[in-house]
Amino acid sequence: MHHTTATLLVSCRDRTGLVAALSDFVFRHGGNIIDADQHAESGADNGQFFMRLRFDIGGFTLDRAGIAASLGALARKFELNHQISYSDKRQRVVIFVSKTPHCLYDLLLRQQLGELGGDIIAVVSNHRELQTVAGHFGLPFHYIPVGAAGKDEAEQQQLDLLASLDADLVVLARYMQVLSPRFLEQWHSRVINIHHSFLPAFVGAKPYHQAKERGVKIIGATAHYVTPQLDQGPIIEQDVIRVSHRDEVEDLVRKGRDLERQVLSRAVHAHLDRRVLISGTRTIVFT
Amino acid sequence: MHHTTATLLVSCRDRTGLVAALSDFVFRHGGNIIDADQHAESGADNGQFFMRLRFDIGGFTLDRAGIAASLGALARKFELNHQISYSDKRQRVVIFVSKTPHCLYDLLLRQQLGELGGDIIAVVSNHRELQTVAGHFGLPFHYIPVGAAGKDEAEQQQLDLLASLDADLVVLARYMQVLSPRFLEQWHSRVINIHHSFLPAFVGAKPYHQAKERGVKIIGATAHYVTPQLDQGPIIEQDVIRVSHRDEVEDLVRKGRDLERQVLSRAVHAHLDRRVLISGTRTIVFT
Amino acid sequence: MHHTTATLLVSCRDRTGLVAALSDFVFRHGGNIIDADQHAESGADNGQFFMRLRFDIGGFTLDRAGIAASLGALARKFELNHQISYSDKRQRVVIFVSKTPHCLYDLLLRQQLGELGGDIIAVVSNHRELQTVAGHFGLPFHYIPVGAAGKDEAEQQQLDLLASLDADLVVLARYMQVLSPRFLEQWHSRVINIHHSFLPAFVGAKPYHQAKERGVKIIGATAHYVTPQLDQGPIIEQDVIRVSHRDEVEDLVRKGRDLERQVLSRAVHAHLDRRVLISGTRTIVFT
Amino acid sequence: MHHTTATLLVSCRDRTGLVAALSDFVFRHGGNIIDADQHAESGADNGQFFMRLRFDIGGFTLDRAGIAASLGALARKFELNHQISYSDKRQRVVIFVSKTPHCLYDLLLRQQLGELGGDIIAVVSNHRELQTVAGHFGLPFHYIPVGAAGKDEAEQQQLDLLASLDADLVVLARYMQVLSPRFLEQWHSRVINIHHSFLPAFVGAKPYHQAKERGVKIIGATAHYVTPQLDQGPIIEQDVIRVSHRDEVEDLVRKGRDLERQVLSRAVHAHLDRRVLISGTRTIVFT
Repeated sequence: MHHTTATLLVSCRDRTGLVAALSDFVFRHGGNIIDADQHAESGADNGQFFMRLRFDIGGFTLDRAGIAASLGALARKFELNHQISYSDKRQRVVIFVSKTPHCLYDLLLRQQLGELGGDIIAVVSNHRELQTVAGHFGLPFHYIPVGAAGKDEAEQQQLDLLASLDADLVVLARYMQVLSPRFLEQWHSRVINIHHSFLPAFVGAKPYHQAKERGVKIIGATAHYVTPQLDQGPIIEQDVIRVSHRDEVEDLVRKGRDLERQVLSRAVHAHLDRRVLISGTRTIVFT
Repeated sequence: MHHTTATLLVSCRDRTGLVAALSDFVFRHGGNIIDADQHAESGADNGQFFMRLRFDIGGFTLDRAGIAASLGALARKFELNHQISYSDKRQRVVIFVSKTPHCLYDLLLRQQLGELGGDIIAVVSNHRELQTVAGHFGLPFHYIPVGAAGKDEAEQQQLDLLASLDADLVVLARYMQVLSPRFLEQWHSRVINIHHSFLPAFVGAKPYHQAKERGVKIIGATAHYVTPQLDQGPIIEQDVIRVSHRDEVEDLVRKGRDLERQVLSRAVHAHLDRRVLISGTRTIVFT
Repeated sequence: MHHTTATLLVSCRDRTGLVAALSDFVFRHGGNIIDADQHAESGADNGQFFMRLRFDIGGFTLDRAGIAASLGALARKFELNHQISYSDKRQRVVIFVSKTPHCLYDLLLRQQLGELGGDIIAVVSNHRELQTVAGHFGLPFHYIPVGAAGKDEAEQQQLDLLASLDADLVVLARYMQVLSPRFLEQWHSRVINIHHSFLPAFVGAKPYHQAKERGVKIIGATAHYVTPQLDQGPIIEQDVIRVSHRDEVEDLVRKGRDLERQVLSRAVHAHLDRRVLISGTRTIVFT
Repeated sequence: MHHTTATLLVSCRDRTGLVAALSDFVFRHGGNIIDADQHAESGADNGQFFMRLRFDIGGFTLDRAGIAASLGALARKFELNHQISYSDKRQRVVIFVSKTPHCLYDLLLRQQLGELGGDIIAVVSNHRELQTVAGHFGLPFHYIPVGAAGKDEAEQQQLDLLASLDADLVVLARYMQVLSPRFLEQWHSRVINIHHSFLPAFVGAKPYHQAKERGVKIIGATAHYVTPQLDQGPIIEQDVIRVSHRDEVEDLVRKGRDLERQVLSRAVHAHLDRRVLISGTRTIVFT
């Protein structure tokens, strides 16, 4: 009933004929476009062009190698950055956690409900607390402590594990360790974190204490790709909630938890649906 | 600097090749697509296809008659409903009001700030109270009372006025008269109203009293195209605000006013940007 | 560190001296008021007065029988409806579910995180699907099918179970059976339900299909006390989320699930904190 | 019909008997409490206590000098900071603007609609552009340019004008000049500004450009009391709106304008209703 679909993400300098060339490519080979969303930023010559094209390939006349070759030719001609993915090749997700369960439950429940466009395949932690949660949802749990041997060794174990699992995406669901530049270089644009404030306000530790101190009337949470610059990576999703003087820090923490899990899950959902395109220090999220 | 652009709205039964045919049409004649937003509803054969295509026609090789002819041919081939408009042909808007000023001020201020993609050209009212507001913003004010001669005569005057003004859109900015089916037949899909509740809840009169009585925790406002069925027309925009037991009916009215003017202005803004497509009893609003 | 506190909820016809009498009562017996929130509705003689008073009883000079007697005397004098509760007597909550897990997980996770001011003590269901969820959180699961013997017998089993568990509150966390008037008479004001729409819009079944059909731009969820009139009980909490034409019914269902669990949990949270006062067909929720 | 009411705002270190003493004071002298909202922050000995008490003084047995004396005695006894105001002594508001009209229109329209609990009595500007707006609403307009004689002289003219007008509150409705410490010392806690970002994010100039650059998904606005530390004063109200990659800087500016006027007007509304209490670097806003 549901045919296989392909999703093409494109960014480049704006030029005439891009949409025509790409949609013609789909049409000529027997595809049917289900969703197209395209935007050209104003700004004269250096305007950027962003596109997401999802099409049915049930009766496509090219195989995937053929598609790759054809798109490669188009990419050279138009100087495109492009990325193609197929609905029958689901992304494999590994979740990193420490001791806090709310984001983990949220993601695993969504997987169980069939909401996610990818597969969570394992949970990794530097603590044992959440092992039973992974088990309850039928997922392997990998305990990788950051021990005496130090963080480098733990990271190497993580990297080896990710490689052996053939993982595509790492989600830091309240993982309380900073990843090294070496890790992030290998996993560039493929690690999503949840920060418990409305970035760029309250960068760093204890944002709810900062928020209480400053007397803000709204608190937020931010999901972003992780880069070596702490809390500076491209933002994928944000949301906020209203607070008042009646909220003690523990109430802010509780309200924050509600935000964190929703914002993180929405970001993961968008990434797995191939709706996120990174452009420099920011993202384009197609709705 | 800003070139003239054309905006094409299309709805039809989904078929392969639609996007390719339309974007190829633009490309072949020297247009550049600035924004494309397309969606095919799932639902097998009877899935609907909706598209908005905005393109630069600075160097287009067809004139507008030529565009109309070519699109006509495409429309026959693909059984399209389509509508094309040009950024240099701004829609002419007439606002109908009674005595309540908040929506009128909001729209006229936005016009002054250059926010609207059309031109408000006149204010019509069955009362004299808001004449000075129109005057302050430099707009003609037409007083058409619904007098002894009855509503039919007043409506005929309105229709004549709209014709003489070459108007494209009527906005009911808290106009407290029901328009007749005859009026709405002529102005089908071209009259926008603001209803002071979250439709379909609280249809009819005194929605804030109903909301207070029912103890709802949120109130809303709804902008919609007007059809002969009261409060049943296609919804363009809605928004809500949180209320509590501390809000007396007069507070609900005040909060409601804030919603009404924002929701109405956003609906008018979307309509004038040609981002609204009517499909049966509902709308598609491209973002 | 945290002393025992008492929470007093009062509603009555407004009269002078109420706040003074009640706060003086607390003060004279050595209590300290932590939170007081009081509101008198305008409306002349028949204005209603609502109050929530939370006070520290660490050094109170009356025991609970003494408090009950004194409050009884005040209640007679001022014709008060009143209700007192103590922080060391936590309410006992039983959750009713069918097959849908998202609201159940949400409530049980909040219990585990220590967010709730009461104790969930059991899960009751007419299906076996969610037994493992209860087990995972260490809670007894009672399977009470609505079998051939009919609904009356099942309800009697439920009532007997609630009595034997000494339960205070029933939460219908997507329980797909209508409770009988007989049940609701016994559990009047003590059954909370989640309705998957913004009441009073879309009363009844399949609200997301109704919402899609009507083309609304916002969907909602409503938590309310259950009364024999379906979907008409006093509303405790509501929230909404924005939707668009890109959302198929399954997307509305998914977005609705997010709303449902948050709205239900917030309502249960408020009830257990003794912040909800029922006044006729509506509630006062102290913030 | 509406009696005169008094509003008492109190902050102090928490002590037992405060609510009883204050409500007893009201009751003994024949007042009736309409609204009482009180909160004691947790935090042992140094917990802060905040209260707002509004009461009907139609039949009060003390005159205002008597009330002042009695409250003075209570204040000494309990070491209270307190502030009393009367509904028949409305605050006198002067609005400072530069060239941007949207916040000014919003405030003046609310005055015309009778929404505000105080009186806007004049508009002051360093430009002439908005003179006709003041005139349209029947308000005097004072043109005080910041000319060759320098800012000091202009500020002195402003201070003299405010004194001669017997003003209580200054609202900076997009006034593009920084007030000197000397001015703010005299008008401490009585100048409200609107900052066009979600503070503490994007302090300083061009916040919408910063927001676009950073790719945030939500933008905000903040109303705050002005202190000599730029953008650091106690926050009264904040709100946010969702944005996307489709929003160019000019769209952010437009959406920001909508936020700014609402947030500023809500802050002014709260201040004039005596619902704002300043506590150090933050505010308590009673709802």
